[in-house]
Amino acid sequence: MYLLDRVDQSIRKMKSNAANIMTIGNLSFGGAAIISTLNENYSYSVLFIFIAAFLDRLDGMVARKFGTESELGKQLDSMSDIISFGMAPAILIYTLILNDFGTLGAGFTIIYIASGAFRLARFNITESDGYFTGLPITVAGTLLTFTYFFIQFVPSSFYLLITILLSFLMISTFKLRKV
Amino acid sequence: MYLLDRVDQSIRKMKSNAANIMTIGNLSFGGAAIISTLNENYSYSVLFIFIAAFLDRLDGMVARKFGTESELGKQLDSMSDIISFGMAPAILIYTLILNDFGTLGAGFTIIYIASGAFRLARFNITESDGYFTGLPITVAGTLLTFTYFFIQFVPSSFYLLITILLSFLMISTFKLRKV
Repeated sequence: MYLLDRVDQSIRKMKSNAANIMTIGNLSFGGAAIISTLNENYSYSVLFIFIAAFLDRLDGMVARKFGTESELGKQLDSMSDIISFGMAPAILIYTLILNDFGTLGAGFTIIYIASGAFRLARFNITESDGYFTGLPITVAGTLLTFTYFFIQFVPSSFYLLITILLSFLMISTFKLRKV
Repeated sequence: MYLLDRVDQSIRKMKSNAANIMTIGNLSFGGAAIISTLNENYSYSVLFIFIAAFLDRLDGMVARKFGTESELGKQLDSMSDIISFGMAPAILIYTLILNDFGTLGAGFTIIYIASGAFRLARFNITESDGYFTGLPITVAGTLLTFTYFFIQFVPSSFYLLITILLSFLMISTFKLRKV
């Protein structure tokens, strides 16, 4: 019985770590995206943010499937989210476009990051009820990253607008059904 | 009595918000530090990280003094910490030095950020007992930023060493008395 308990414990531990390792992976791809932007490899940055978004979906699914959702996992997930979908897309779009708008561009970039942080902080202290309150930062960050593909087709001011719009949607309190 | 209650409530609300506004300030200076690094204004970046560190000390003191420590404040504080003392110093030192080490430098930068995130996630699920477990990210980030002043005097490889050392100290489980 003792041995079986130990084996069972080890499997549980591995399963529990599986989700957290994916979260660390998400965060690492977020970090890699930022470093790619610094090195002017913008398409890599976009790719890495999308991989982070994929891992972000996956870790939650794995944790739920294995029944290993943990407080540590939830906290780690928020840290990954602010890096991969807050900082990384903001730095990408700032470097490519918003930079041209001087202080205004810098201000909007900081507002986007601060709104994402506020959204995550509020989420962490709210009980889950099957609804999101405000646009999740994952969605906002993925959308902002996706606008990379339109750079040649839309005016620069569009990026000021989308950045502030996404910020507003994150901190607003409308309800969105989870899917 | 009703009026007095309302006034009392308003004052409580203002006091409660005071700490959170300082936290948002901390986070905004972190964001401004990152943007300064992107714009090659490195000494501004250092200054902004130090201001963020000052606000970080202050918001906790204000919250404790007014007795307005809140779960939202705690969560917001962690978000600020990963930005101002995780991302901002890491991006500064990467841009100035670690960049020269290619993949190794990028890897160490990501390890530093991931260790900071893990340290904060662990802190958020631990009850306070008057001790820190592992080096606080605020201390690690301030120290890493402080090494900026030695750039001309120490070999580049020192920065690889200090980055990995601070990462290790953050995730390690030694106890440090709070001051």
